[in-house]
Amino acid sequence: MKKVSSLSQLGLNSDIHHALFRPIQEAAPPSPTKRRTKVSVVGTGNVGMAIAQTILTQNLVDDLALVDAKPDMLRGEMLDLQHAAAFLPHTRILASPDYSITAGSDICIITAGARQIPGETRLNLLHRNVALFKQIVPPVARHSPGALLLVVSNPVDVLTYIAWKLSGFPANRVIGSGTNLDSSRFRFLLADHLEVNAQDVQAYMVGEHGDSSVALWSSISVGGLPILSQLKGDEAAKEQEVLEKIRRAVVDSAYEVIRLKGYTSWAIGYSVASLARSLLRDQHRIHPVSLLAKGFYGIPDDREVFLSLPAQLGRGGVLGVANMQLTEEEAKRLRRSADTLWSLQYELELELV
Amino acid sequence: MKKVSSLSQLGLNSDIHHALFRPIQEAAPPSPTKRRTKVSVVGTGNVGMAIAQTILTQNLVDDLALVDAKPDMLRGEMLDLQHAAAFLPHTRILASPDYSITAGSDICIITAGARQIPGETRLNLLHRNVALFKQIVPPVARHSPGALLLVVSNPVDVLTYIAWKLSGFPANRVIGSGTNLDSSRFRFLLADHLEVNAQDVQAYMVGEHGDSSVALWSSISVGGLPILSQLKGDEAAKEQEVLEKIRRAVVDSAYEVIRLKGYTSWAIGYSVASLARSLLRDQHRIHPVSLLAKGFYGIPDDREVFLSLPAQLGRGGVLGVANMQLTEEEAKRLRRSADTLWSLQYELELELV
Amino acid sequence: MKKVSSLSQLGLNSDIHHALFRPIQEAAPPSPTKRRTKVSVVGTGNVGMAIAQTILTQNLVDDLALVDAKPDMLRGEMLDLQHAAAFLPHTRILASPDYSITAGSDICIITAGARQIPGETRLNLLHRNVALFKQIVPPVARHSPGALLLVVSNPVDVLTYIAWKLSGFPANRVIGSGTNLDSSRFRFLLADHLEVNAQDVQAYMVGEHGDSSVALWSSISVGGLPILSQLKGDEAAKEQEVLEKIRRAVVDSAYEVIRLKGYTSWAIGYSVASLARSLLRDQHRIHPVSLLAKGFYGIPDDREVFLSLPAQLGRGGVLGVANMQLTEEEAKRLRRSADTLWSLQYELELELV
Amino acid sequence: MKKVSSLSQLGLNSDIHHALFRPIQEAAPPSPTKRRTKVSVVGTGNVGMAIAQTILTQNLVDDLALVDAKPDMLRGEMLDLQHAAAFLPHTRILASPDYSITAGSDICIITAGARQIPGETRLNLLHRNVALFKQIVPPVARHSPGALLLVVSNPVDVLTYIAWKLSGFPANRVIGSGTNLDSSRFRFLLADHLEVNAQDVQAYMVGEHGDSSVALWSSISVGGLPILSQLKGDEAAKEQEVLEKIRRAVVDSAYEVIRLKGYTSWAIGYSVASLARSLLRDQHRIHPVSLLAKGFYGIPDDREVFLSLPAQLGRGGVLGVANMQLTEEEAKRLRRSADTLWSLQYELELELV
Repeated sequence: MKKVSSLSQLGLNSDIHHALFRPIQEAAPPSPTKRRTKVSVVGTGNVGMAIAQTILTQNLVDDLALVDAKPDMLRGEMLDLQHAAAFLPHTRILASPDYSITAGSDICIITAGARQIPGETRLNLLHRNVALFKQIVPPVARHSPGALLLVVSNPVDVLTYIAWKLSGFPANRVIGSGTNLDSSRFRFLLADHLEVNAQDVQAYMVGEHGDSSVALWSSISVGGLPILSQLKGDEAAKEQEVLEKIRRAVVDSAYEVIRLKGYTSWAIGYSVASLARSLLRDQHRIHPVSLLAKGFYGIPDDREVFLSLPAQLGRGGVLGVANMQLTEEEAKRLRRSADTLWSLQYELELELV
Repeated sequence: MKKVSSLSQLGLNSDIHHALFRPIQEAAPPSPTKRRTKVSVVGTGNVGMAIAQTILTQNLVDDLALVDAKPDMLRGEMLDLQHAAAFLPHTRILASPDYSITAGSDICIITAGARQIPGETRLNLLHRNVALFKQIVPPVARHSPGALLLVVSNPVDVLTYIAWKLSGFPANRVIGSGTNLDSSRFRFLLADHLEVNAQDVQAYMVGEHGDSSVALWSSISVGGLPILSQLKGDEAAKEQEVLEKIRRAVVDSAYEVIRLKGYTSWAIGYSVASLARSLLRDQHRIHPVSLLAKGFYGIPDDREVFLSLPAQLGRGGVLGVANMQLTEEEAKRLRRSADTLWSLQYELELELV
Repeated sequence: MKKVSSLSQLGLNSDIHHALFRPIQEAAPPSPTKRRTKVSVVGTGNVGMAIAQTILTQNLVDDLALVDAKPDMLRGEMLDLQHAAAFLPHTRILASPDYSITAGSDICIITAGARQIPGETRLNLLHRNVALFKQIVPPVARHSPGALLLVVSNPVDVLTYIAWKLSGFPANRVIGSGTNLDSSRFRFLLADHLEVNAQDVQAYMVGEHGDSSVALWSSISVGGLPILSQLKGDEAAKEQEVLEKIRRAVVDSAYEVIRLKGYTSWAIGYSVASLARSLLRDQHRIHPVSLLAKGFYGIPDDREVFLSLPAQLGRGGVLGVANMQLTEEEAKRLRRSADTLWSLQYELELELV
Repeated sequence: MKKVSSLSQLGLNSDIHHALFRPIQEAAPPSPTKRRTKVSVVGTGNVGMAIAQTILTQNLVDDLALVDAKPDMLRGEMLDLQHAAAFLPHTRILASPDYSITAGSDICIITAGARQIPGETRLNLLHRNVALFKQIVPPVARHSPGALLLVVSNPVDVLTYIAWKLSGFPANRVIGSGTNLDSSRFRFLLADHLEVNAQDVQAYMVGEHGDSSVALWSSISVGGLPILSQLKGDEAAKEQEVLEKIRRAVVDSAYEVIRLKGYTSWAIGYSVASLARSLLRDQHRIHPVSLLAKGFYGIPDDREVFLSLPAQLGRGGVLGVANMQLTEEEAKRLRRSADTLWSLQYELELELV
């Protein structure tokens, strides 16, 4: 399936390249250390394809490999991207249900996940996703032993933990997309409210991705200028009220998009492409992502949970976690999430042995 | 619906911008000739959204307006794009079922179209699409009297003619995406066969978009080097055979993608974004697009049909049509397509009066 | 001089375009409101050319006009940029000593300026630059009455004031590059010190461009996380010391580059291109630029001086000035600079009548 | 000199990074195969800096190393680029007179060269440049044994041969910028003449860079449409005349720019950056570059000369040479150039032993 449109498929040999181009003399094959940049996307539903297409448009990689269990749909998606070759830089696009196609990836992005069956408990869904990750993660890790794993499937924090355990990778090389998108939604709503460019807004949501995420008031600034300290008295109180509404709007907005269009795709596509850029190009930029959080902000060392915290990302994965000034309330909420996740993982743990 | 995430929706006034920013003295409003670049996309299904998202990622516009008859899905798509604001340049994204949102567009891209009902005749489908275009084109033209119309809906050649008639626009400002994508597929397959970069391959498909499109052999070159003249005797004969297989593969590939994934989206998205770039940035680049073809290559002046021919595109729309050396067979097939389209339009004509 | 490489210069008519391309029927000229984006650069020394080339590489404009009093050097620079056409998007590059070439610009960037003669007083140099601006600004303003003026020549604050007076433009449309570059140097040194990405560092230098610029401690943050409040006791004291060294390093760094390579060019080129992007694409981003500062931070309304303050920039020029929390010392230094500039302008004022 | 602006220079330790960021637990250092992309530029005069800055603006590399024998100027150029950090992606910019700074480069671009002394013979100048290359090439090759060498210094064909001999590299990894720029000038003049986008013009100049370069008429096409075959009789004859004038204009244009502004910089900067992109990103695009030409177009196998021919470039350097249909006159001129270069190299050869 790797090379679909080639002459071999059309039943003919490909001699014409050699009629058009001849090698020079005294040449030697390129040194084996010269590598092409490769990203694999496992799961080519709406989320996976939005990620793949955004990475392609932004010209981040030399090779893009797609893996999915549905071979027809997968081949259709691959062809649809390949047909745009004349409008894009020279990226090799590969697709196969077989994980060997991901071999030698710099980043493997996992978006595959079971969907909730009506009436199904959250724990039951998790069991099914753990079963799925047991099929996905070991071959992915085997074919790309030096890769970074970037988990997008939900519930992202638990599944990133699972991917860490199943891969045997060091913790800095296993990252969940976490609250990177929540933070972008936060910034958009603040920017829209303040009538500024969202790229000038700094604001983080951290902790567990989803309903219990934590908005960090102290992190909100516009062009580096703190907002809350700008305001006085009633104005500040009123503004706090607005900001709380915005926080709730962030939490609700994913549900809203799903309710309206059936799923989310574009924003998570841009969000994960931005993480891929920071990782591949060793940008050392700060993103809130799900990482091994034990030992931070009072989370005990025996709580092996993944939670989102602002971290510096680069070619080595998580380079460091930002040392923020949390309020006691904020830290308490982080620790509460850690406990919840830990209990959940405890129930799941047996399966991983 | 225009401004969804604002404070007004959250029930509060927006005074904080004025607390954060103050105007300077002796200022004056900007001159009315200073305009933001605006593109509207009518129809936000898979094709329309792939176009909108690619235009957004490539940072081609300041304002992007989306129109669709389904308000919920439309709002979901708008929010999903807006949530990526922190990862993108500052583009204003608007959405409404009301065409007034498209006012002042530089380009209006029409992707809306009825789907074929099982058992429905092609002519009946066309009647329904003409009825749809009667609802779309007049308000679009009224709100953006200076815009370029770019028609993507199928059958693209007839519908571009319909859009021209309904808009009352000069012919250079009404363009169909035509065989721009077919040509890209052609280039990809040739590049894959020849093991070169598709951006170095020149090759055109012209005429009617779809089954009866015409591949121009004389136009095929690699990095400016003609291919067919490179080959001699048997080699050339064999190569001709391969190329004919490739031509058929191009024609089949759209059907293949639709059969495999249910629709096409990514490639048409990149294809139309590339047309939008050439038009908006006045690039004078050559693209095969559907244009008013009467008088070219022996098509009689009374045949008011739109067909794809390689044309220079710029801010004024179609700037000129390339004067190619067609074989008599190629020219004959163009004229035959013109006749077919003309007959079809004749049957439809009454409705437009 | 406008069209140098054309056939007319080679003594032949250009009929071949018409042999290659034919217009379609029923076409009409494009609507007059469809405009190409145009930037003019007055003064094509090292600074002007670094700006022009960076704007070109970043594909910000459709037309780029260069003006300089030295026709040979000017033509050489134009040809050198034009020769790169095959590697760049389709930008029209024009050059002439005659200001009519700038007609219809969206932004006019003025980099021309007299150089200090050894032994010359600062006031005498200013007199000569005012004389130069009297030749430059009126024709520039006449040929592009709706343009934004972006002054880069030094001393930038006084010369921006002079350009404002000479142009008769409203104050929001006259901007000096001011401390935008100082702030970038500040961010680079902080980023280098903190081992983070400079794009994640927020930090402003404001006030008068040059020796008496003011570094705003409260504005320093990394990824939105305030730095100084992170540190405690001795650590903070020590860090203050470091930061003061960095501030001095910023002020010295322009001198250092000039001492080492004879002039500065690349950084000011990127800095001004970044301003041009925010202005042209209506980005509403915040940049510290020189603007009419009367009425801000206690500067009296009768002090018509230009000083750098963080401002939102867009297609209308200066959209608003950020309301920062300055310390009393910082505000005092701003007012002192305003007084100094006012006195200087008072001495020059007679000449402008 | 490597790290100039750091705290160590300011006499303080850099503990603050560790106060701001903490590593996560169970982390491991990144795999040694994860490499940053690195380009080195040897020689930071006008040409070298235009190349370096264009590569930086186009975001092609993670590390950029500059080498020059003049430490002050070199440090000034490095600082001037570094000061733009806030406007650019996160590229590490290094500079030193010591070649160790180039260690591990993917591409080493050599622009250093002696200038002709008035009255000096061409052969004497060559002797001096060979002496210079003996100092440059061996340490460059030693520090980056897997690199591609890209020679820009003139006379480029002979010096590329010298670099090949001195490096001991296989021939596919030693490339001269050759006629890549001549071809761009050719395309610009044709595009200007034909009123089309230069990116739609295909046209090659091949052979020896400079006065005796060969323009390939058969390679000229616009958007894939051959030009000369479009024209008939008198029209074609007249057009031939124009094209010959354009060929001469191409050859003269480098001299013209040097006469007007004293040197060339921008166009060669874009030209070499475009080669760097094709090489680094494994683009397989076709560029006319100087390569080991023996055995092509009748050049005898014992003529070890470098000449420009259209070649596919990728991560492995020269991947293949295009098989063009040359006229006998064109092939004869290529062979004549090969003889001239061979004689010249014969005189120089002794020195390399």
